[in-house]
Amino acid sequence: MPITANNPNRKSWLAVAPESDFPIQNIPFGVFLTKDDVITIGTRIGDFAIDLGALQALNYFAGIELTDDMFMQDTLNDFISDGKKTWRLVRNRIADIFDENNPELRDNEEDKEQVIYHISDVEMQLPVQIGDYTDFYSSREHATNVGKMFRDPENALLPNWLHIPVGYHGRSSSIVPSGIPVHRPMGQTLPAGENTPLFGPSRTIDFELEMAFITTDANIMGENIPVHEAEDYIFGMVLLNDWSARDIQKWEYVPLGPFLAKNFATSISPWIVTMDALEPFRTKGPKQDPTPLPYLQQKGKHAFDINLSVEIKPENAESTMVCHSNFKYMYWSMSQQLAHHTSNGCRVNSGDMMGSGTISGPTPDSFGSMLELTWGGKNPIKLKDGTERKFINDNDTVIMKGFCKNADVRIGFGEVSSKLLPPFVRS
Amino acid sequence: MPITANNPNRKSWLAVAPESDFPIQNIPFGVFLTKDDVITIGTRIGDFAIDLGALQALNYFAGIELTDDMFMQDTLNDFISDGKKTWRLVRNRIADIFDENNPELRDNEEDKEQVIYHISDVEMQLPVQIGDYTDFYSSREHATNVGKMFRDPENALLPNWLHIPVGYHGRSSSIVPSGIPVHRPMGQTLPAGENTPLFGPSRTIDFELEMAFITTDANIMGENIPVHEAEDYIFGMVLLNDWSARDIQKWEYVPLGPFLAKNFATSISPWIVTMDALEPFRTKGPKQDPTPLPYLQQKGKHAFDINLSVEIKPENAESTMVCHSNFKYMYWSMSQQLAHHTSNGCRVNSGDMMGSGTISGPTPDSFGSMLELTWGGKNPIKLKDGTERKFINDNDTVIMKGFCKNADVRIGFGEVSSKLLPPFVRS
Repeated sequence: MPITANNPNRKSWLAVAPESDFPIQNIPFGVFLTKDDVITIGTRIGDFAIDLGALQALNYFAGIELTDDMFMQDTLNDFISDGKKTWRLVRNRIADIFDENNPELRDNEEDKEQVIYHISDVEMQLPVQIGDYTDFYSSREHATNVGKMFRDPENALLPNWLHIPVGYHGRSSSIVPSGIPVHRPMGQTLPAGENTPLFGPSRTIDFELEMAFITTDANIMGENIPVHEAEDYIFGMVLLNDWSARDIQKWEYVPLGPFLAKNFATSISPWIVTMDALEPFRTKGPKQDPTPLPYLQQKGKHAFDINLSVEIKPENAESTMVCHSNFKYMYWSMSQQLAHHTSNGCRVNSGDMMGSGTISGPTPDSFGSMLELTWGGKNPIKLKDGTERKFINDNDTVIMKGFCKNADVRIGFGEVSSKLLPPFVRS
Repeated sequence: MPITANNPNRKSWLAVAPESDFPIQNIPFGVFLTKDDVITIGTRIGDFAIDLGALQALNYFAGIELTDDMFMQDTLNDFISDGKKTWRLVRNRIADIFDENNPELRDNEEDKEQVIYHISDVEMQLPVQIGDYTDFYSSREHATNVGKMFRDPENALLPNWLHIPVGYHGRSSSIVPSGIPVHRPMGQTLPAGENTPLFGPSRTIDFELEMAFITTDANIMGENIPVHEAEDYIFGMVLLNDWSARDIQKWEYVPLGPFLAKNFATSISPWIVTMDALEPFRTKGPKQDPTPLPYLQQKGKHAFDINLSVEIKPENAESTMVCHSNFKYMYWSMSQQLAHHTSNGCRVNSGDMMGSGTISGPTPDSFGSMLELTWGGKNPIKLKDGTERKFINDNDTVIMKGFCKNADVRIGFGEVSSKLLPPFVRS
């Protein structure tokens, strides 16, 4: 079935600014709360949030097999469960409805009233109920930087790294959408040179620039997903800020991995951009040497050219761009990650989320964390307001953005923006 | 409110064998499927499964504030969310209903028909929808054994271990109830002396004898649970077999912890035994030296005296007991684990599950895994059928049991029993 929604020549009768992340070729999926306190599944064109629940109730999806209340839900899990064919049918239909040449909704003021909100009048929610959240560690540059700083500069990559898309389980309950502030966590740390740990506020709060993909029901327990089928089970992607407390991490992570250093908060952008929308931005990933084992081998283009950036905005001051990176730098592809994850029969469900790991590029300004950008705090970053940062200060807002662009179209993710608050005080 | 359900002198009008795990003083909670394909929340007395949905519909819970369909659900999450006071009211009421001196249901044949099933006529389900699953590593003996085998025999415990209830995130989607067979996973391993990994069936499948507790909604994001309040947020406990593929684990676990070595399957016993039922079996845990940091300090008895055992049953052969252990050996208490888990503000929800980590005792026959029992495969265990085991063979069934006992009463968990099948073959 062709992805007619991707037609680069199509224009919408809704106004879309030239540099918008959300032209009619994007059609992402999200969940929002309206001013009338109604939660619905929606999409976005330009600066308009579109209520898909209302569209369905008004019969605009006639002919597509959907349960009656498919979009009048507070998560996308059921829709994602319906599979790729349905996602494509719905997205193609939405593109038709909002095509400038289609008068059906365009000229129906009453229906438009029920369907279209200005984006400033809705409150974005988590788009899915995330059953399990896995975080990978798939940027070679990031793993190398960390290895140089904390282990052996001459053998920065661990022996398994070039053979395995290394990953671990994260905490689903602490995943929040863009806009929700995050408290600086308390925790145990071991001060340098001491033998006895302390408990107090973390002093080294970091962001990690990541992206994540959302899966559909991929398998039954015991069954693996072959690497060449894996992309069929990926619904779409979001931006992800993997908040990290470096001092807590350093003391706790041996031998079972990061735990409280990560699970106080993970922030994601609220609109899931579909893999269909990202199709024009496929590209080749880095050459893999040594050749992966057969269950991880794939041909063709399985990386995606997505420009990424991170800004830090101190309170009442202008923001400063501190990092430019690109998703295409990832050594392991999403399909390799999903094939590996299920190679032991681990069950993957609709709404599960898998993070890329920090996305660092080859140049120092493309490193995806303060740990790497300041090289462990040795080289503080100067912000536009004249202050310096080794890590993130209280009341700083960290803003991550991402977009794809070619000669025809720009497909963006919007942003994940979250403010770091001082430690929580019980009321 | 007194826990009248714990009255040791009470007898039920339902027959209970003398050594049953489920006297009227237990009253655990679970979810089962009846022969009529109805799913309901239930409890168990002797060999009878009791349909709490039917009991509620017949108005036996009158006077207790419950939503109308509280027990006609396929998970206990909502009931657990109602909090400790409701759990206790319901459990006390159930004890009253089945008290030998109460004729209300005893003498109502029509109602009994709707409420009571023989245990062999129902199929136990997962009792909760597990949002997040955390696994701790809180047995000093286990951590010491592992440290001796894989690290430094002279410094077996890592420096953080006596300060932190070390834990990590597990996979919720692979948790299955007792009775569901588990496939031997495929995976990457690095053969001894080689530089290049292989992909194939794991050759060293192990059990880990654990228990787990189930929480209620404990906090909002950012807020911690003080250690002295933590027990109020624990609903009850189950037995847990943390299936582990040692060869996969060895190759993958650095630096982010176990992943595919664990997430192919985790088996739990289906009846959640409440903390109220376990109250008579409180005991003092091991002395903690060094003294933990203040946020982990507690007085009184926070360990529980629960006898544990593991049997291996080869196909068509008698089972052999390979391990006797006790939950009271745990160095870190459940309240310390929960206080630590939330010390950074990590949100804990109703239905979250937290495993103890392998429960090894001080003597070699109390070690909670084949890894320790055979000391890395060096000392195979002889089974009653004459065969030997270094690890678990295909078609072996691993059976874990647990019970508390004092002069008055025996409160048990039943069992978690799961068969290891050969690797999954796609049909």
